[in-house]
Amino acid sequence: MKKILIATTALVATAGVASADVSLSGDARMGVIYDGSDLNFTSRTRAQITLSGESDGGLSFGGSFDMHNAGDASSGLSGSAFVSGEFGKISMGDVDGAAKAAVGQVDGVGLTGLDDLNEVVYVNGGTDVDGDASDDTIYPNPAALYEFTTGAFSFYAGAGDPAGKSEAESVLTTGGPTSGNITTTTLSADETYSVGAKWAANGFSIGLGFETVQAALTVSDTLGTFVPTAVQGTISQIIIGASAEFGDFTIKGIYGDISTSKSLGGGGDQWAISGTYAMDALSVTAFYSDISIGIGSAEAYGLGAAYDLGGGLSVKGGVVNDRGGDTIADFGVSMSF
Amino acid sequence: MKKILIATTALVATAGVASADVSLSGDARMGVIYDGSDLNFTSRTRAQITLSGESDGGLSFGGSFDMHNAGDASSGLSGSAFVSGEFGKISMGDVDGAAKAAVGQVDGVGLTGLDDLNEVVYVNGGTDVDGDASDDTIYPNPAALYEFTTGAFSFYAGAGDPAGKSEAESVLTTGGPTSGNITTTTLSADETYSVGAKWAANGFSIGLGFETVQAALTVSDTLGTFVPTAVQGTISQIIIGASAEFGDFTIKGIYGDISTSKSLGGGGDQWAISGTYAMDALSVTAFYSDISIGIGSAEAYGLGAAYDLGGGLSVKGGVVNDRGGDTIADFGVSMSF
Amino acid sequence: MKKILIATTALVATAGVASADVSLSGDARMGVIYDGSDLNFTSRTRAQITLSGESDGGLSFGGSFDMHNAGDASSGLSGSAFVSGEFGKISMGDVDGAAKAAVGQVDGVGLTGLDDLNEVVYVNGGTDVDGDASDDTIYPNPAALYEFTTGAFSFYAGAGDPAGKSEAESVLTTGGPTSGNITTTTLSADETYSVGAKWAANGFSIGLGFETVQAALTVSDTLGTFVPTAVQGTISQIIIGASAEFGDFTIKGIYGDISTSKSLGGGGDQWAISGTYAMDALSVTAFYSDISIGIGSAEAYGLGAAYDLGGGLSVKGGVVNDRGGDTIADFGVSMSF
Repeated sequence: MKKILIATTALVATAGVASADVSLSGDARMGVIYDGSDLNFTSRTRAQITLSGESDGGLSFGGSFDMHNAGDASSGLSGSAFVSGEFGKISMGDVDGAAKAAVGQVDGVGLTGLDDLNEVVYVNGGTDVDGDASDDTIYPNPAALYEFTTGAFSFYAGAGDPAGKSEAESVLTTGGPTSGNITTTTLSADETYSVGAKWAANGFSIGLGFETVQAALTVSDTLGTFVPTAVQGTISQIIIGASAEFGDFTIKGIYGDISTSKSLGGGGDQWAISGTYAMDALSVTAFYSDISIGIGSAEAYGLGAAYDLGGGLSVKGGVVNDRGGDTIADFGVSMSF
Repeated sequence: MKKILIATTALVATAGVASADVSLSGDARMGVIYDGSDLNFTSRTRAQITLSGESDGGLSFGGSFDMHNAGDASSGLSGSAFVSGEFGKISMGDVDGAAKAAVGQVDGVGLTGLDDLNEVVYVNGGTDVDGDASDDTIYPNPAALYEFTTGAFSFYAGAGDPAGKSEAESVLTTGGPTSGNITTTTLSADETYSVGAKWAANGFSIGLGFETVQAALTVSDTLGTFVPTAVQGTISQIIIGASAEFGDFTIKGIYGDISTSKSLGGGGDQWAISGTYAMDALSVTAFYSDISIGIGSAEAYGLGAAYDLGGGLSVKGGVVNDRGGDTIADFGVSMSF
Repeated sequence: MKKILIATTALVATAGVASADVSLSGDARMGVIYDGSDLNFTSRTRAQITLSGESDGGLSFGGSFDMHNAGDASSGLSGSAFVSGEFGKISMGDVDGAAKAAVGQVDGVGLTGLDDLNEVVYVNGGTDVDGDASDDTIYPNPAALYEFTTGAFSFYAGAGDPAGKSEAESVLTTGGPTSGNITTTTLSADETYSVGAKWAANGFSIGLGFETVQAALTVSDTLGTFVPTAVQGTISQIIIGASAEFGDFTIKGIYGDISTSKSLGGGGDQWAISGTYAMDALSVTAFYSDISIGIGSAEAYGLGAAYDLGGGLSVKGGVVNDRGGDTIADFGVSMSF
């Protein structure tokens, strides 16, 4: 993830002249993954683009995106751009909500992340709820995030794209009241706001966030059995997280309380905890997470280890008991460039 | 848009050895846009690839494409490649027609271009006619453009891909003669040619272009109400443009006369004018455009300003009265790397 | 195809510190192609990303992918990653099977490859059987390839992704037993293995490979005329190739014997030969190929020439008699950066 390219402008710039750079970084991995029933190969090769500049007046500005998301980044649905100065930092694009920016996630395990089951759900800012490696939440992009740091404190405020361009999640379910019917449930976001604050010093940190979405739930079907209905309501979360380092050992914990309007179904709560022991090139991580939203409690836990071979190469592996009770595992080499 | 990477081959090259480079540039923006009814965030982050080389005999060659169009560029539908020498320059790919290369466009306004309503229509070479930010013309790619410059004069000749791979525009219209019917109108290009010339010196320029397309208009519908029909004909344009600098003030004007075969509907004319005042870091632009093709006259006008903060960062904003009479506006920061 | 970017880490690295680089290369071409009935323009502009690093212990690792395949590369379906050391080299992603790695292909002709009709079919590892420039074989990615070289000998072993993620080829055929019916034939891979060996020294080389696929052939149709059937079986190939340099002349030949389970239809054999004469900047290539698999023998032959203008620019052209008896040809400039 380091900057790896030299800008011509930087090399030939006379002192005091602002310059703008484009740099590339990359990552790759290869190994095997056991998905609960089959053993498969897994590999990937990626690159990231980082743009950075500084105005004559000392404002920093830039952006970044993944090369495989270049199409979405060109329309603000992936990647992000920012301007920062003494006033703080404003980012726009596929940015986190303020609650996630302040609280984050506990540590995960494995070569591939193993469905990232260590992660809690954020109402704003792209979380993978059902562990299928694709974001499920309905935060409309381009979203905006403001960050301000003073001493040990950081403050965050976020908003999804105002009404008119909100993204929506569609769920297709075959069957339904009439045989052959296809029912579509669409959850769309209207107004989305979030705030957060974080304190970090001496190896300890505490983060607190609040986030809310004005959501609409619409049900329709192909056979017209349902009268299309739209249920309006609010989904909100108060979430708190903390981390502490004790020598080579780091512990992290997060608790979130989600409340929804009655019309959208009940809320729930979620928590996750991780412990990571790191000494020299070796690190070992364990996590436990429990998400109880609407449809009952679902817990997951996992254990993983990584060994750093230097130069960007490391060996990683993990084993996780997922929310359906299956054991999934992976092992391989991870590379960063 | 500067070259920002150093080629190894250049650094280690011994004198006289030709070298080939790959360089990256980037751009980004973030702000707000009012589309006539709603205020939305707008952001994007992009990168461009520039390839350049020189043969032992002194021929320059290269190419360029946007990273988010890498797929289309790999098949000649986006980006372009070129070879240039004393004979001139030959480009192929998603290149402009000769008329557009000679005459160009008047200045536009805003952070996002605000639907580029300052632009006139070119029959060859990708113009956005209806302001929906997607090209509507039917120039078949890969197209070719030849340019030759001697003194103050430049000459251009262009051709779309010969018969067999022409692109087509499809317009879906619900309704039609029978309720529930979907009518598809397809305009496809057959042979496309264009020529142009430009004179530029001492802050003044005059450009002249002629372009023509052998087109076929096909109408069909889902219910089979229509007998599918194909109308053959020609669409041509003579277009002239001029620009003049008076100190800090630049004025540009373009007039185009479009003639079509009777069978393809009537032709029309179009004109656009812009004035830009630039002093130090500030520039202010106003434009007026009137496109009268077939379905009546549609005028648009706008005003915008940009302030350059140095290093590639600028603040931009604009307000435009679009062809439907709505007022659209945007404001934000624009970045180049 | 050279590395063209300098890594910051390399420039500032102190001796002995391992570093990781991201480099870009590019290629482009433009010209004309005659497809047997029409003359068309052809052009493309591309870039490749190469990742490379070295661990503290001296292991080399890296990866590469085409920019226009960045999406597939991020999920292991295109590009590849590798680790190499004294134990050999392990690659994963869209890698060749071991037979192809050992035996390769004879030389082809033309600016565009002219459908690569010089190429023989490999059961494992992406070959374009029907010359439509898209891979037809059913090797499931990410696949893995192991290579080990000692002296003049190289050994290869390969495997497609184990069961669960295999790719499949679908062939749609209109008509069929009932008018308006659409029959789909799907050939899917189950277990795929390959081994190969190569000896190369003093301008001579011999390669030998064996590859096998456990395949299933499924036929279904839209009108339900067929009872969907799945035929299991094996497709295997023994293939041998050799090359020899005689001064400025290089000759290459390949012979492959494909055997299939009776239930999957008969096997067949294939051979290809090429001769290339290269002197100074000029090279002339001729090839002949004959693929006799199942549906009868189909031969192709072609002649082409390339002239290197230095710096990465060359002029290329070719003419080929394809397997349907048509004559196809192309001519233009090829560029590498």
